[in-house]
Amino acid sequence: MTLPTTVEILSIGNELLRGEILDTNTQWLCGLVTGRGGRVGRVTLLPDVEDEIAEAVRSAIDRGVDVLITSGGLGPTDDDLTLAAVARGVGVDLVLTPLARDMVRASYDDFHARGIIAAGGLNPFREKMAHLPAGAEPLVNPVGTAPGVLLQVGNTVIISLPGVPPELKAIVSQTLAGFLDRTFGRGSSASRLLTVRCNDESIMAPALTGAVARHPHVYIKSLARALGEVPELDILLLATGDDLQGLQREVDEARADLEQGLTALGLVYRDKA
Amino acid sequence: MTLPTTVEILSIGNELLRGEILDTNTQWLCGLVTGRGGRVGRVTLLPDVEDEIAEAVRSAIDRGVDVLITSGGLGPTDDDLTLAAVARGVGVDLVLTPLARDMVRASYDDFHARGIIAAGGLNPFREKMAHLPAGAEPLVNPVGTAPGVLLQVGNTVIISLPGVPPELKAIVSQTLAGFLDRTFGRGSSASRLLTVRCNDESIMAPALTGAVARHPHVYIKSLARALGEVPELDILLLATGDDLQGLQREVDEARADLEQGLTALGLVYRDKA
Repeated sequence: MTLPTTVEILSIGNELLRGEILDTNTQWLCGLVTGRGGRVGRVTLLPDVEDEIAEAVRSAIDRGVDVLITSGGLGPTDDDLTLAAVARGVGVDLVLTPLARDMVRASYDDFHARGIIAAGGLNPFREKMAHLPAGAEPLVNPVGTAPGVLLQVGNTVIISLPGVPPELKAIVSQTLAGFLDRTFGRGSSASRLLTVRCNDESIMAPALTGAVARHPHVYIKSLARALGEVPELDILLLATGDDLQGLQREVDEARADLEQGLTALGLVYRDKA
Repeated sequence: MTLPTTVEILSIGNELLRGEILDTNTQWLCGLVTGRGGRVGRVTLLPDVEDEIAEAVRSAIDRGVDVLITSGGLGPTDDDLTLAAVARGVGVDLVLTPLARDMVRASYDDFHARGIIAAGGLNPFREKMAHLPAGAEPLVNPVGTAPGVLLQVGNTVIISLPGVPPELKAIVSQTLAGFLDRTFGRGSSASRLLTVRCNDESIMAPALTGAVARHPHVYIKSLARALGEVPELDILLLATGDDLQGLQREVDEARADLEQGLTALGLVYRDKA
């Protein structure tokens, strides 16, 4: 059993910490990584402060994460300073990168040609988005103007994505499709969701405790709800790794164990529709 | 001008890092702190791993934050280990706390009396929720069973809240109302939202750059959208502190400056409805 690819996320923007914007990118990225058999170890929401972002980048590299994803702060305004912070955190310069500049220019020209904006071409604010950490590779943004950025630092790959959700998703799903396949390899996951006719976690708990202890490779978790909010509670069983058949077998064994515990408690359950 | 009260948040739960659950608590807490003139400096999403939570608690205390809020991990199952981690991070024992036990028992008795659950009283899983870091104060949970927890450590107040959103909100809004008034004092905020008839941040950017530089106490930010997604862009101007009249004046001055810049660029704007 190979270890899962470890991922951390830095979600950047004052608007997140001020509560103006709900960070939906993080959940989407976490679901994607989990579904491919990887593991997100930590997510940090940070303000648009270069020092703090640079320090967080260094910490993640020191922890030896395989992939560090940053979201937000790639745009044309002065408070978009993620790439400067990544460069500082890694200890390289921020340099105007011709391939990135071509991408930015082509995007603005295209938006202009489609009648969406008044002028194509470059200006200093647009060109700012083509300043990448030295050694980084720009990633085509299929729906916006700020390229994504990929930078290998030792064993860690840093991927910087724009914070606007459709742009982030398009770069990951389209431009990074091959990277994801290579990085997560045959990683996959197997899961089951069980619905128990019980509205009180404290009654179900003994069955969970036993199954968790006997199946350490399977993630077993009752999804907490307010007491009395719903008449039934869901329990998720999930295993990630690289051998899908083995994962399914492990999940089924854990499920049988859990069912025995639930039955012993007089609880009725069914597969979640 | 007094410094804003600094807050950090630890949002805890494997389900967040696996992308099963969207973390809405964080945005709600951030909005509340910002609206009262405080500043959320960082948010960290962590898995249900005692070591990692304990280390994050220690780091936040070392950074000297005024208030550290944890959400999640207060329930009856074994993977709810936030309080054990807080105790470890702070260096105190986890102890059965009579007042908390009374709260837990009263909650289950009440849910039972209302016909919502089959049995009132305590069992070991329920009693687990009454084990608090030594010296901590339990906080009444008006809508659920797990008490919140308040622990003063040096100059930092650690507040632990359940992750179920209605429970978290009820403890903060009701039980902590007095604490919030004392902590944030007369802290308040003034803001304006301007809508600019422009769909391209790179065109508006010079007006922003000038206004930001000349009004360092006002937070001025264009809210990024996908290029062409909307025909107009919003710019937020916001100031926080303790003198509401002064804040309003600062925001109005920054706004006048920004308007001059937008006009010079030939851009039309209006107050957001």
